[in-house]
Amino acid sequence: MSASDSSYVLVTGGTGFIGSHTVLELVTQGYNVVVADNMYNGCEEPLRRIEKLANLKDRIPLCKVDLTDKSSLREVFRQYSFSSVVHLAAVKAVGESVRKPLVYYRNNVTGTLNLLDVMVEFGVKNIVFSSSATVYKADPEGKPFREDSELGCTSPYGRTKLFMESIIQDVVNAEQGWNAIMLRFFNPAGAHESGTMGENPMQIPNNLMPYMSQVAIGKLEKLHVFGTDFNTRDGTGLRDYIHIMDLAEAHVAALKRLSANHGYEVFNIGSGSGQTVLEMIDAMSAACGKKIPYSEDPRRSGDIDTILCDPTKAAEVLGFKVSRSLEQMCADLWRWQTANPSGYGQ
Amino acid sequence: MSASDSSYVLVTGGTGFIGSHTVLELVTQGYNVVVADNMYNGCEEPLRRIEKLANLKDRIPLCKVDLTDKSSLREVFRQYSFSSVVHLAAVKAVGESVRKPLVYYRNNVTGTLNLLDVMVEFGVKNIVFSSSATVYKADPEGKPFREDSELGCTSPYGRTKLFMESIIQDVVNAEQGWNAIMLRFFNPAGAHESGTMGENPMQIPNNLMPYMSQVAIGKLEKLHVFGTDFNTRDGTGLRDYIHIMDLAEAHVAALKRLSANHGYEVFNIGSGSGQTVLEMIDAMSAACGKKIPYSEDPRRSGDIDTILCDPTKAAEVLGFKVSRSLEQMCADLWRWQTANPSGYGQ
Repeated sequence: MSASDSSYVLVTGGTGFIGSHTVLELVTQGYNVVVADNMYNGCEEPLRRIEKLANLKDRIPLCKVDLTDKSSLREVFRQYSFSSVVHLAAVKAVGESVRKPLVYYRNNVTGTLNLLDVMVEFGVKNIVFSSSATVYKADPEGKPFREDSELGCTSPYGRTKLFMESIIQDVVNAEQGWNAIMLRFFNPAGAHESGTMGENPMQIPNNLMPYMSQVAIGKLEKLHVFGTDFNTRDGTGLRDYIHIMDLAEAHVAALKRLSANHGYEVFNIGSGSGQTVLEMIDAMSAACGKKIPYSEDPRRSGDIDTILCDPTKAAEVLGFKVSRSLEQMCADLWRWQTANPSGYGQ
Repeated sequence: MSASDSSYVLVTGGTGFIGSHTVLELVTQGYNVVVADNMYNGCEEPLRRIEKLANLKDRIPLCKVDLTDKSSLREVFRQYSFSSVVHLAAVKAVGESVRKPLVYYRNNVTGTLNLLDVMVEFGVKNIVFSSSATVYKADPEGKPFREDSELGCTSPYGRTKLFMESIIQDVVNAEQGWNAIMLRFFNPAGAHESGTMGENPMQIPNNLMPYMSQVAIGKLEKLHVFGTDFNTRDGTGLRDYIHIMDLAEAHVAALKRLSANHGYEVFNIGSGSGQTVLEMIDAMSAACGKKIPYSEDPRRSGDIDTILCDPTKAAEVLGFKVSRSLEQMCADLWRWQTANPSGYGQ
């Protein structure tokens, strides 16, 4: 899908962390975007900031719709002519998914089924789906995951992602002319370099970087390092962090690839290099110019040594590589955190 | 769940082939049954025949409801007090699922999510789920499947079964006091020995036995044997056939097991011995006293040599074993076919 196309790209979950940065990248590259979001964890402010950053004359259309409400979703497709969909709307807290699996399956799986149904109904045949590295079965040796590595999930959240991938693949096989790209992203982090857009956790953050950043600014007391006896270079868990704007660019690269009509494709989106928790603490401490206090705590059940991306296929086929460093990721996050201590200020 | 419980057992899909025979076995053993069925492929006649066979004074309550319609389903739970659910409602044609995956995911997965949601809402915590041997990954050596054999599906239909199992397991893990038994049945066949109840295919049958039986009675011209070069004793595909009344008894055995509070359990339901297509033709020919004409045709893509059940766990834990022979299966099917050449006469 090229930006010269006068029709719209629908971004579901477009006010979220990945969503808002992807919308920014899309409109910057000249795409017409419509955002669909149920606003349960979002607000309109990121769209206002995108409009300012991208010097848009008009507001980005926002449809407040829940994907589990098919008739409202159908109205959105009646109102706009879409060339393609970037599907990011999902509930995403692993721990919560264990406690409330039906909420996760209903929102993510039933929501996706409704979206696909309506896409078929309106002849919209192109979709980029934000999947996740969580679909891979843990590798005891910590080998980087390739797209053909074995799949297997330990949480309902992960299973919703795996199920959604399978369902989309079955639709591509069944329907004429469909194209779908699954982006299995690793650990998105950082913020837009302007310091005006970033992650806006509504509760205590689940992820390392926003948690660290809230410790650094004094909102949280200290960081908990869960497990120091992992089989990594310093004993703490090693993950593959990717700058949120790199991830946004990957979504646009995938969208462009759709028009080449390759049917169903899967790409890992990560850096290929990993950092341990202690290395991330050092990098963030350097960015904010202060020591980040932490305690060493026992492992959480299910956590594994190393989760690392093999980014070869995305580089070769999509032409996508991360271009932002760990230092920039931390500096951008800190700029966002200090300029917006209460996130988008709700 | 024992039959002395005054509350009801809800049987979803209770007018279907497995459903109706299971309802018969339940009411025969004294259970109070409510049937929920969308009636897309069913009719009320099997319930009338069950009432007659079991000498019931009252009609079996039938709620015409589609599981994708949650508010109607909720009304059913408001009307009756259920101790447990036997969940059989599903669309089940493998080939159709490849062409219409969204129909399969919506009916089977979204339908099951609604059912589980409403069960949680009303505090109904016991479920027997009719799964299928289709969830197992094909074994190149044709070894009998054990419950811990590797899983993996080649059709959207199979994936709906696998997803439903996973979702139910996640609910059992999340909710207090839930019990669930997955019955992975192999090839159900035959009919009730009375000749008044059996399978009622609305289109040309997909499965070997009803197809053969319609050839024998002259409704279809000849049987197609797809593939004679499989690695089996006579070159034709070998499957594990189970008499429909054995399968019905397995459902009741599972229902009884639920009250022992073992959480989530999985059982294979099959005979453990298999028959090739040619052996089935011979057995059916003997039962109906005439040669069944057939042609030898090329393999269908995806068909495999052998699908066989290891029934050890069901025998040891559920105390369930098949008790009906291949000859009886064929004789019962033929009795049903000749007495009801148009099925339930729609």
